[in-house]
Amino acid sequence: MVNPHFLSQLAHVELLSPKPEETVNYLKEVWGLEETTRRGQSVYLRAWGDYFHHSLKITEAAGPGLGHIGWRADSEGALQNVVQHLERTELGKGWIEGDLGHGKAYQFITPGGHLSEVFWDVEWYQAPEGKESVWKNRPQKQVRRGIGVRRLDHVTVLTDNTTVDRLFYQDLGIRYNEGIYSDFGDEIGAWMSVSNLSHDIAFINAGFKGGFHHVCFAVESREELLNAADTIREHGFEIESGPGKHAVAEGLNLYAIEPGGNRIELYAGAHLVFAPDWGPKKWKVSENPNDAWSSFNLFNPDGSLKYS
Amino acid sequence: MVNPHFLSQLAHVELLSPKPEETVNYLKEVWGLEETTRRGQSVYLRAWGDYFHHSLKITEAAGPGLGHIGWRADSEGALQNVVQHLERTELGKGWIEGDLGHGKAYQFITPGGHLSEVFWDVEWYQAPEGKESVWKNRPQKQVRRGIGVRRLDHVTVLTDNTTVDRLFYQDLGIRYNEGIYSDFGDEIGAWMSVSNLSHDIAFINAGFKGGFHHVCFAVESREELLNAADTIREHGFEIESGPGKHAVAEGLNLYAIEPGGNRIELYAGAHLVFAPDWGPKKWKVSENPNDAWSSFNLFNPDGSLKYS
Amino acid sequence: MVNPHFLSQLAHVELLSPKPEETVNYLKEVWGLEETTRRGQSVYLRAWGDYFHHSLKITEAAGPGLGHIGWRADSEGALQNVVQHLERTELGKGWIEGDLGHGKAYQFITPGGHLSEVFWDVEWYQAPEGKESVWKNRPQKQVRRGIGVRRLDHVTVLTDNTTVDRLFYQDLGIRYNEGIYSDFGDEIGAWMSVSNLSHDIAFINAGFKGGFHHVCFAVESREELLNAADTIREHGFEIESGPGKHAVAEGLNLYAIEPGGNRIELYAGAHLVFAPDWGPKKWKVSENPNDAWSSFNLFNPDGSLKYS
Amino acid sequence: MVNPHFLSQLAHVELLSPKPEETVNYLKEVWGLEETTRRGQSVYLRAWGDYFHHSLKITEAAGPGLGHIGWRADSEGALQNVVQHLERTELGKGWIEGDLGHGKAYQFITPGGHLSEVFWDVEWYQAPEGKESVWKNRPQKQVRRGIGVRRLDHVTVLTDNTTVDRLFYQDLGIRYNEGIYSDFGDEIGAWMSVSNLSHDIAFINAGFKGGFHHVCFAVESREELLNAADTIREHGFEIESGPGKHAVAEGLNLYAIEPGGNRIELYAGAHLVFAPDWGPKKWKVSENPNDAWSSFNLFNPDGSLKYS
Repeated sequence: MVNPHFLSQLAHVELLSPKPEETVNYLKEVWGLEETTRRGQSVYLRAWGDYFHHSLKITEAAGPGLGHIGWRADSEGALQNVVQHLERTELGKGWIEGDLGHGKAYQFITPGGHLSEVFWDVEWYQAPEGKESVWKNRPQKQVRRGIGVRRLDHVTVLTDNTTVDRLFYQDLGIRYNEGIYSDFGDEIGAWMSVSNLSHDIAFINAGFKGGFHHVCFAVESREELLNAADTIREHGFEIESGPGKHAVAEGLNLYAIEPGGNRIELYAGAHLVFAPDWGPKKWKVSENPNDAWSSFNLFNPDGSLKYS
Repeated sequence: MVNPHFLSQLAHVELLSPKPEETVNYLKEVWGLEETTRRGQSVYLRAWGDYFHHSLKITEAAGPGLGHIGWRADSEGALQNVVQHLERTELGKGWIEGDLGHGKAYQFITPGGHLSEVFWDVEWYQAPEGKESVWKNRPQKQVRRGIGVRRLDHVTVLTDNTTVDRLFYQDLGIRYNEGIYSDFGDEIGAWMSVSNLSHDIAFINAGFKGGFHHVCFAVESREELLNAADTIREHGFEIESGPGKHAVAEGLNLYAIEPGGNRIELYAGAHLVFAPDWGPKKWKVSENPNDAWSSFNLFNPDGSLKYS
Repeated sequence: MVNPHFLSQLAHVELLSPKPEETVNYLKEVWGLEETTRRGQSVYLRAWGDYFHHSLKITEAAGPGLGHIGWRADSEGALQNVVQHLERTELGKGWIEGDLGHGKAYQFITPGGHLSEVFWDVEWYQAPEGKESVWKNRPQKQVRRGIGVRRLDHVTVLTDNTTVDRLFYQDLGIRYNEGIYSDFGDEIGAWMSVSNLSHDIAFINAGFKGGFHHVCFAVESREELLNAADTIREHGFEIESGPGKHAVAEGLNLYAIEPGGNRIELYAGAHLVFAPDWGPKKWKVSENPNDAWSSFNLFNPDGSLKYS
Repeated sequence: MVNPHFLSQLAHVELLSPKPEETVNYLKEVWGLEETTRRGQSVYLRAWGDYFHHSLKITEAAGPGLGHIGWRADSEGALQNVVQHLERTELGKGWIEGDLGHGKAYQFITPGGHLSEVFWDVEWYQAPEGKESVWKNRPQKQVRRGIGVRRLDHVTVLTDNTTVDRLFYQDLGIRYNEGIYSDFGDEIGAWMSVSNLSHDIAFINAGFKGGFHHVCFAVESREELLNAADTIREHGFEIESGPGKHAVAEGLNLYAIEPGGNRIELYAGAHLVFAPDWGPKKWKVSENPNDAWSSFNLFNPDGSLKYS
């Protein structure tokens, strides 16, 4: 048996916002995201180091939450293979023509109820005049506005059954790197990746389907993350939690809530995983996987969160 | 067509040393490498974050240089596939029983004359009592001795024909991310990866086969690399060059020569590449790919090095 | 009027420990302090960048707490002047012959009940063979053992009347940089300096005299402080709080309790103050002076601490 | 004898520029300086953490160079004392009414021919609406435009006789921390401070009077300095040298030439000096005081520079 390698990366996430202008302004001014374009009720954003047309799509809606998750296939052939696989699962919805920034995509709904899609053809970001980097391996000039995040890192969603979701994604070739279990053995969370990142997607059991926890962008260094905490505060906004360090994945992190109500994480310093059989590292909640440094444990022994 | 994904990571490098005791002491005391074991004329080392038995093997020899390069396959099945592929190239040497730290391996000699091997079965490092990390996703406790490098990063070799080597590795599914060309169009260097690192292996045309340039270890942050420069000097050793920043791959770097005569690089902050079709980014030597910050160009316009 | 400039720096702090061997081992192995010598019931320690004989003296006692605070005068003449001044306050105790590491010292007890001394003659640390730095402006080679703190930063003590202590120290020429007041106007804390540091000494009103809160050592960068948090945990010890950032003085900080029961702070990135009339910046506790990033406020509105 | 403590800090530097608009734009957009106001042929700038009206004044002139150096006295009384002292030296020029940002000042010309002034009354910077920091110990909100330097650090000038200048400044109570001497014993350079910084002013013997070498601004961390190197290059400008580390004063540094022709240094991580009698640490040029890491020595054995 060989690993399927259907997917190459998390390409974009769509978030819903009841206050899209405020959401977009916050992400551009405070987090330093760049706007590629707008169409209809959606604004297409990316971090300066993201090389596709967009990595975040903000769409107006009645409330906050996840729109969809966009995965890029590993090749044109891999796209065909993953679609065959999805069709067999009966979770496939079918092809759409695509969106701004990518070609035809195959949509599916995961067991946990998250609308997802996979595609191969992409539009590579082309920096307009004045935004070109002096170095040809950067899609555009470094952005120093606000935090100036460098790239999309991962998305974390809420589900009603982490085990079922995790098995579905493992069948898609997404590696199960780390897991959190209640002290009674219930599976609570799963950290999974298609790349060498510590995770491209994570699941947390919240007792309901289709939930969204956060989307995460990365800066290049932990020092930048500390400065970013000042930046958020100096713009007059709150930090929800952090800077702190997760034991799982080892990322220095902070969380903030954007004006539309979605949680955004900032990340630096997580480890990389190269071996396909490295995981899963399984943590009990009593081992405090959420926090490497503090003795405060976010989890109750049964895996429920002390604060929601 | 789908990408073959024969390999999952650069697993280890063997270096030859005419002064193995001095080489090993230097790497342990100054760079913070850990010794796993010794057998015959060889000492097996690893960085504290490397999760296999070893990532660097030092073997006594008449002079410095490369022993071999060890790649890990992506799975047992992928090992069979890559061996079939190598047998067709007529560059395969055949199976060996393995070495300390891994099982049977298939050896081959690249067009550029570098002995290489690929294997699947590995021995995972088990920290002895007193070296266990408090966190289960670390193979051992963080090492703070000397530089305290975290993991093997990449190996760079010298060849007589970068193009031929690069094509051979591309057939192995190793992605061609960045290339350096003389101002007259000759291919000089190639930066290639099986992982999301900027490169796992690089080639530089030096006009002869089988040459070694350096092996590189990574620290977690650029700040640690700056402190490491002090550490090397405070131990009474020289820095060959750096800290500086390469434009290619964007890594902050420094080079030092170990007492046995091999060049070792220290690295932090290089970018990651996720898309299989991101590269190649092609640089002319007149664009100073070696140095992001300085106006000093290491290369002559014909691609030869000003200093060897 | 000119400023008196009686003092040039906080030179050392003496702490009491009921478990002096454990205290010293912890400070040496985890924090990287260096032992200069031992005499009687005391061990003399310093950080590698501290250029005097010692900056921390650990003395065996029935319980933890402050032994004394040692200030260095600004000159031989300034020592005479400050002693004249202290004699007028009737808080002076008189001259002692000195201690290991410094010459004759004048002792005094502050209004808050903290035994203190001032001296001019000092013994400069001389690195023994093998510990000399390659650079002549370092008192010894950089230490990379454990955290490897660089220098003593400040001491914070508990008092029954911050205002009285603050005025006493202002008369000594110690500048009042920042203050914390309850929301009802009561003076709670004072941050004061003889140097350009954000503070060399701080006072917190705890309702009793002679208390000790913490002694603080500095590392060179915030990145090192983050790594230090890992180091403490990897040695099997707890972090009491942090890493976090104080709004007052702006230092990134963490606190730990050493095995003898004294609180030790680690510090990086606090601002410098150059103008003698820069302060005082006065904070209300409702402005959360203890925490720049979190919305959690350690203080109750009346200035009492939520946790002691 | 007590130290005079005439001065408390280097308050501002005036530079001349033949292209003042380009100079100011570069310093604002690339280095992140803030403009306070303009008057006549001058523009008044400051870093976001500088708490006086300005720390850098750019004045139109036929060519680049130093306008004057502004020192703040330690108190109103200290101002009287230093003026008495200067009048005795016959280098005093007399009082001027002041300038934007400060009150009456006493001018003098140093032996090396640098116009200088000392004053006590200052205008403290008041952030206009929208620029106030959320923290009361910052004069304004953190600036993230370009490099976003935090504060003025020091000025370095060229002279015809370092010894004479150094003695003049020592009489002003400026401490002699570090010195560079040719291998034949000639005094080449002097690093001196009124504060705890490694130096507020430095002198290099260039064989002529009145020369200017550079003015230096500081960022909070070495990581920020590395990012700043990218920022300068991404704005399309060159770095003259660095990032590198001086052995003298230990600062990570880079140099750039602004469009008007003046050299600007960026600095992070230099050590602090607390003891008034710490120095002088005397370096021979053969000990490579300019460069802590490289084996390349900027100086010839006679103390002349290899590059001017």
